[in-house]
Amino acid sequence: MKTISKRANKGLLTALMGGLLLIATTGTASAQVTGETDFIFNSFLFLITGMFVMFMAAGFCMLEVGMVRSRNAATICLKNVTLYSIAGIMFYLVGYKLMYGGANAFFGGFGIWGADDALAKANDFTKLQDDGVNYASGSDWFFQMVFCATAASIVSGTVAERIKLWPFLIFTAVLTGIIYPIQGSWVWGGGWLSEMGFSDFAGSTLVHSAGGWAALIGALVLGARTGKYGPNGQVVGVMPGSSLPLASLGVFILWLGWFGFNGGSQLALGSAANAIDISQIFINTNLAAAGGVVAAVIATQLIYKKVDLTMALNGAIGGLVSITAEPLAPTGGVAMLIGAVGGVLIVFAVPLLDKLKIDDVVGAIPAHLVCGIWGTLIVPLTNKDASYLNQLIGVVAIGAFVSIVSFVLWQVLKMTMGIRASTEDEMQGLDKSELGLEAYPEFAAS
Amino acid sequence: MKTISKRANKGLLTALMGGLLLIATTGTASAQVTGETDFIFNSFLFLITGMFVMFMAAGFCMLEVGMVRSRNAATICLKNVTLYSIAGIMFYLVGYKLMYGGANAFFGGFGIWGADDALAKANDFTKLQDDGVNYASGSDWFFQMVFCATAASIVSGTVAERIKLWPFLIFTAVLTGIIYPIQGSWVWGGGWLSEMGFSDFAGSTLVHSAGGWAALIGALVLGARTGKYGPNGQVVGVMPGSSLPLASLGVFILWLGWFGFNGGSQLALGSAANAIDISQIFINTNLAAAGGVVAAVIATQLIYKKVDLTMALNGAIGGLVSITAEPLAPTGGVAMLIGAVGGVLIVFAVPLLDKLKIDDVVGAIPAHLVCGIWGTLIVPLTNKDASYLNQLIGVVAIGAFVSIVSFVLWQVLKMTMGIRASTEDEMQGLDKSELGLEAYPEFAAS
Amino acid sequence: MKTISKRANKGLLTALMGGLLLIATTGTASAQVTGETDFIFNSFLFLITGMFVMFMAAGFCMLEVGMVRSRNAATICLKNVTLYSIAGIMFYLVGYKLMYGGANAFFGGFGIWGADDALAKANDFTKLQDDGVNYASGSDWFFQMVFCATAASIVSGTVAERIKLWPFLIFTAVLTGIIYPIQGSWVWGGGWLSEMGFSDFAGSTLVHSAGGWAALIGALVLGARTGKYGPNGQVVGVMPGSSLPLASLGVFILWLGWFGFNGGSQLALGSAANAIDISQIFINTNLAAAGGVVAAVIATQLIYKKVDLTMALNGAIGGLVSITAEPLAPTGGVAMLIGAVGGVLIVFAVPLLDKLKIDDVVGAIPAHLVCGIWGTLIVPLTNKDASYLNQLIGVVAIGAFVSIVSFVLWQVLKMTMGIRASTEDEMQGLDKSELGLEAYPEFAAS
Repeated sequence: MKTISKRANKGLLTALMGGLLLIATTGTASAQVTGETDFIFNSFLFLITGMFVMFMAAGFCMLEVGMVRSRNAATICLKNVTLYSIAGIMFYLVGYKLMYGGANAFFGGFGIWGADDALAKANDFTKLQDDGVNYASGSDWFFQMVFCATAASIVSGTVAERIKLWPFLIFTAVLTGIIYPIQGSWVWGGGWLSEMGFSDFAGSTLVHSAGGWAALIGALVLGARTGKYGPNGQVVGVMPGSSLPLASLGVFILWLGWFGFNGGSQLALGSAANAIDISQIFINTNLAAAGGVVAAVIATQLIYKKVDLTMALNGAIGGLVSITAEPLAPTGGVAMLIGAVGGVLIVFAVPLLDKLKIDDVVGAIPAHLVCGIWGTLIVPLTNKDASYLNQLIGVVAIGAFVSIVSFVLWQVLKMTMGIRASTEDEMQGLDKSELGLEAYPEFAAS
Repeated sequence: MKTISKRANKGLLTALMGGLLLIATTGTASAQVTGETDFIFNSFLFLITGMFVMFMAAGFCMLEVGMVRSRNAATICLKNVTLYSIAGIMFYLVGYKLMYGGANAFFGGFGIWGADDALAKANDFTKLQDDGVNYASGSDWFFQMVFCATAASIVSGTVAERIKLWPFLIFTAVLTGIIYPIQGSWVWGGGWLSEMGFSDFAGSTLVHSAGGWAALIGALVLGARTGKYGPNGQVVGVMPGSSLPLASLGVFILWLGWFGFNGGSQLALGSAANAIDISQIFINTNLAAAGGVVAAVIATQLIYKKVDLTMALNGAIGGLVSITAEPLAPTGGVAMLIGAVGGVLIVFAVPLLDKLKIDDVVGAIPAHLVCGIWGTLIVPLTNKDASYLNQLIGVVAIGAFVSIVSFVLWQVLKMTMGIRASTEDEMQGLDKSELGLEAYPEFAAS
Repeated sequence: MKTISKRANKGLLTALMGGLLLIATTGTASAQVTGETDFIFNSFLFLITGMFVMFMAAGFCMLEVGMVRSRNAATICLKNVTLYSIAGIMFYLVGYKLMYGGANAFFGGFGIWGADDALAKANDFTKLQDDGVNYASGSDWFFQMVFCATAASIVSGTVAERIKLWPFLIFTAVLTGIIYPIQGSWVWGGGWLSEMGFSDFAGSTLVHSAGGWAALIGALVLGARTGKYGPNGQVVGVMPGSSLPLASLGVFILWLGWFGFNGGSQLALGSAANAIDISQIFINTNLAAAGGVVAAVIATQLIYKKVDLTMALNGAIGGLVSITAEPLAPTGGVAMLIGAVGGVLIVFAVPLLDKLKIDDVVGAIPAHLVCGIWGTLIVPLTNKDASYLNQLIGVVAIGAFVSIVSFVLWQVLKMTMGIRASTEDEMQGLDKSELGLEAYPEFAAS
């Protein structure tokens, strides 16, 4: 105020008085979020929620390490930390541009993130604003990257305990650098499915089903673990997870991360409407997971006369995946029911896969693929802008694309370097053959 | 500026000049946070700190799973993931309205959250502002829900290793849907204790003591684990926790979550004063926990000539609970001392409970009940708006209410379905009898 | 608007119209973040990123507990929870003022944080603004405290399995209260190294090397674990970590926390430029870690024909430490390469230390000291304000100071109370001798 009063004259004073009154009103309800504040809120949302999604990598690692036998525990840790690393590098070098480059309806384009003139713009708020971009480009890259890593995490659990390390890592590189970004470009990159009207808010199909299809094809090409199924397809070798407490920790971490996953997918925080929407997303995310848990607990009690912890844990994941395609439109109660259906689907899908002799070590196919499909198809129930037909087309198109490319890739890896560990290595555990160590060297495994 | 200059005339120009000068001043110290920015900050505070409080469910799970014997580890995981789910559902269907409905001095009201016209308002910033609500309703629900879940988490550790699964889950549903919300309405819902002047900033009494009373009554009704106490009350069966590393992880997670628990309880971030207050809360929360740890470490060294890890861990929790009733008013040094007293209380309360043959598997009663009472009673030392008499009345009233209702509920469950596992099931572990599996199937338990 | 229109007259109306147009423009790109909003953003950045850095204490604990043998697992947990507590208390009582008091070029000053008039100011936004402080003082204290704790965490892993508990805790108190703050004052406190032009954005030297030097000197004074090295210096006793899954979890937690560590070191969020910078820091932090992992995986495959999980985990840490001195200036690709060099350094430094018979239980010296030096020296490659000579001077000066003071302190402790556990205690494990319990009592150690 000091500098102003020095320069004030009568005419200005009149103006000042009006201005003062108006400024005063900026403290009231009608005040809007201004440009730079909006920019910061949006960027900060990406960064903070992205951190929680990043932490889901730890959740997957713990869930998987708890679900495999101890002889493969170190290998699953190595795979998880390495796949997250590879995802980051590939999405930087290839994936982001391929997904969001906007070249055409089927893929985005080629190039390293930030290597073109967008990089210069990324460091200049004014230029970004001129282009209508109200967030830091880098914050968006970070947020999208952790989604890509999530898709890769899904695969590793299903194919655990018998896949060789290096072909898995190569598959991961292609998945995160090419497969995930191409199908992602069809929707979030503004491609043909987006044009058609397919709706997938936070990735029931684009992240979870995509990862699930790649996992399913991997399981089919690899075959089941030695000794899991008898000649008539019955389960003969029960191979229980080595640490259910770590698996439980993993699910809690995933649940935590999912608030970032779904909430951050609002993509903006810089208005009251966004804050209201994100709050609803948090509620629905939580209630869908809770519905999945309670439904799985009740279903296993009714069917098996005992509650099954691994079903309950996967019930949480199933509920979360189910709500991810549309976490905003439902009321909390509907979200809870959508999640509960997901939990029940888990309970029925797990034994069904066993009947089909598809050996999914951690139950990723029921949780991510089956519930991902369910969540995507049910979107039109609450989101009137979506149609059941379009949702079905999207599910089928992405399923076909990911499955076919994954199949070709798994086959090429199989024919060239081989993807399956020797039976001997499998029996003694991959930790010895791949890493030459033990995850729990002091504890005598039974 | 472009559109404006087109329409400018001389009179407006005069006004513009004054306005410009004023606008320039909005970049200086005197500028206030405007309505919508305030709204976003407040909502975002609820959501982000609420996520950390949600993660405390994982902390409780790890603390408890590390403190029970391996034969009950899977069951404790199932209970923790399920109780968090039940808390979310019950608080949605019944609890929130019963706590915050504002019907009268003794309970809030009945109904599903968001089912009345408040839901419409919840989606309209302008209407909310008209009502003086400067945050998204849903963000508040989420934040309050995770507090409710925390209260339920406290019970599960105390009654571990001998309670049957289903009666525990039913107790949890009533606790989170009815007991916790009713006593909560007395203070945070604006009820009679609030009117009287009882002060509990973040829930030393409302969350921690409440959970602690329910746990204590449960332990009394259940009785001790078979073989824990001899005929003269001495401890004959040492039953050490199966994984102190997981218990330690749990405490770190709880400590982390507590910044959200206490910091978010400021309930607003949209002013410099709020940011300053929350910072002080963070400092005090950290120093109280640190004081609790160091006090417990020193006390056990002096008394037992050895440092006790489980005491140190519970010292952290005790320090945190102690500061939760008033994390804002003390200086850091005073907060440290309040927490240190909490840590010492733990060291003396644990053997005292054993003398009373009250079998508290994880030490939740010392940490949450004893320190919750201590923290609540000491509030007037630093908060001059509180009185020792009112604090005592609040502690007694809530203690009586929760204890009586819990007692009736535990008794009803005992008489109808039974709450205690058979001695045979208890000896072989609840994981086998309740879940039909083992938490660590490959590791031979001694 | 209502109150204004009541009081409007013609002259004001003219002013109002101009004001209105101007206010409208505050919604556009040119709108600046105002003072109080800036203040909140900056404080919130400190608090939230500080929480993630605090959680790194859990990461260190899990990494270390997974890397030690089970007989020392409970002791390492106790040390980690206690050292974090001690760091908080010492930094409050002594450290902060000694680091940031600004007394002279070599140390900051003496006093308890907030005990002088700064405390009064800390509660008054206007006064803070007058002093040009645009964040809550307490949020800054919290953020700086968790950095101090990180330095202390580094030491505990190196000296594990043979150091006595109490001398370690005393060392920690001096390290966090005196050693760390004094050298920290030379750079972040505006001391002589800062004046000279030494650049260390987030603490490759000030936190990681400093902790690493203290650890190295500790390892030298202590000597190797009994049975680790043969008479000719060869490794004769392989002492594998007891739980690689927990070690992996620790690395994921550290990686997560590092976004807070480096991102929060921007020290401000209240402008678009800050949001853009923090986003770049997140990208670089992630890609450096990813580069470290992939480089370590490839290097161990090439050298040892097997991938080494512990090398991969330390590769992540090495990459993170390497980028910490300058996480902002590099492009993502350069950050990835800087991290990759860090990962390779790990692979070569670990066996080198063994050749030197320096027994570093968790590999903290390669990760924090070696990569800390590398990261600091390479800053001028991308930051043109730094010079290689100044960087070298800073590395040497801080290395010399921390090493000398640590050496004196370790020696004093050795001569007075003794720092090394008896061979008998060491062989049966410190958990029995120091704590009188077992970390995993039910699992038979081989």
